[in-house]
Amino acid sequence: MLTRFILIQTSHAGNVGGTARAMKTMGFDDLVLVAPRWANVLRREETIQRASGANDVLANARIVETLDEALDGVDHLCATAMTPRDFGPPTRAPREHFAQLMGAASTEASRPGGIAFLFGSERFGMRNEDVYRCHSCLSIPTDPKFGSLNLAAAVQLIAYDWREALGGFALPATTPEKPPADAKALAGMLAHLEQALVAVDFLDPDAPKKLMPRLNQLFNRAAPSEEEIHILRGVAKAMLRAAAAAKR
Amino acid sequence: MLTRFILIQTSHAGNVGGTARAMKTMGFDDLVLVAPRWANVLRREETIQRASGANDVLANARIVETLDEALDGVDHLCATAMTPRDFGPPTRAPREHFAQLMGAASTEASRPGGIAFLFGSERFGMRNEDVYRCHSCLSIPTDPKFGSLNLAAAVQLIAYDWREALGGFALPATTPEKPPADAKALAGMLAHLEQALVAVDFLDPDAPKKLMPRLNQLFNRAAPSEEEIHILRGVAKAMLRAAAAAKR
Repeated sequence: MLTRFILIQTSHAGNVGGTARAMKTMGFDDLVLVAPRWANVLRREETIQRASGANDVLANARIVETLDEALDGVDHLCATAMTPRDFGPPTRAPREHFAQLMGAASTEASRPGGIAFLFGSERFGMRNEDVYRCHSCLSIPTDPKFGSLNLAAAVQLIAYDWREALGGFALPATTPEKPPADAKALAGMLAHLEQALVAVDFLDPDAPKKLMPRLNQLFNRAAPSEEEIHILRGVAKAMLRAAAAAKR
Repeated sequence: MLTRFILIQTSHAGNVGGTARAMKTMGFDDLVLVAPRWANVLRREETIQRASGANDVLANARIVETLDEALDGVDHLCATAMTPRDFGPPTRAPREHFAQLMGAASTEASRPGGIAFLFGSERFGMRNEDVYRCHSCLSIPTDPKFGSLNLAAAVQLIAYDWREALGGFALPATTPEKPPADAKALAGMLAHLEQALVAVDFLDPDAPKKLMPRLNQLFNRAAPSEEEIHILRGVAKAMLRAAAAAKR
């Protein structure tokens, strides 16, 4: 789906670079700047530095004079605002809104054809007249005592939530986790360990108290793999060997 | 729950400030820096600038020499890494892991008493020996072609997901949305509008085609409130008045 990020009257070059980087990490590349403070913002040193390799997003970005020019191809506009207005589109948390747009209850026809996320200037936020054009107003749930999200950080969060709503990226493949050894293997290791604990005079077989049941519970929680059982048996074996050598 | 963010060998002051700001927006304030590049990093100009008011987080932050000194009070350690390792704790997406820790299936006893999120240096990420101490390794699902998250952006995403898992912040109260007017009010408005459309010679009553059913469908989707019905009736009234004046 066409997904566009629109920054309106952005004043900090670093935020434009940070926005490009945030978008690219979530697989988005359609950036439009409406009347930015610096005409050359896409080529400024700070922008390129903070973009940190997201140069294609900067290269594809468009600069336009008015919001109208940024809206081709999108049919669902999301304002972003920290403070709700007394009039305008309904205020929603991003996850809730995206679940409604794209979740199980949505249909082909109810989903947007193209979506745009609008971000106001660092100093003044969005103008009312721009908010009024939108279908919803996204508000990221922040601490009521400190809602001051950095612009690029807000872009990062919205891009993340939207990407997850679109299905998300898979994590890179990892080595499969080792399944836990079965209870028989664990019991065998514990018996081996018990012998070793007796041999090193830690466990008194005549007054064992609850040592072995305690260790059994501990190892149940740890759920050791076959390989780890092997290591633990090796430790038991070495303890037995050391104890035997000490008594020679 | 005690929630700590631990930055290990961080080299950019801006990221320390950005981290403080990101934490504070999500209501967290426990920051520890392990062997940062700059000993005075908490007082550097760039740090304070990027913290943008999260000065209390910087003021409370501790600087320590080793990871050990950063771990008091936490019993669940989450590494963060972009690239999974062939050995070490299981790699998990943050939302999935947090749902497991705190979700419906978790119990009082299975929940951590204190949690720490560890972030490696900007240039090298986390050292294997630090990852191996952790209970899980969080990997934020990013575009496989560009996983380069800024450090403060990664902190922002983890802080957001963790805050949501803890129950989240409420959105600030907004003016309640107006409920849609009932079908009778909509039908009355449409009848009024129909008269007006005839009066201005847009609708031919002898060949109405499907104009009114189309408008009915459009207004059903828009679900106007009582107040909006009132506005639309005002428009119809003005159209009728103008048409009458034109025929005088």
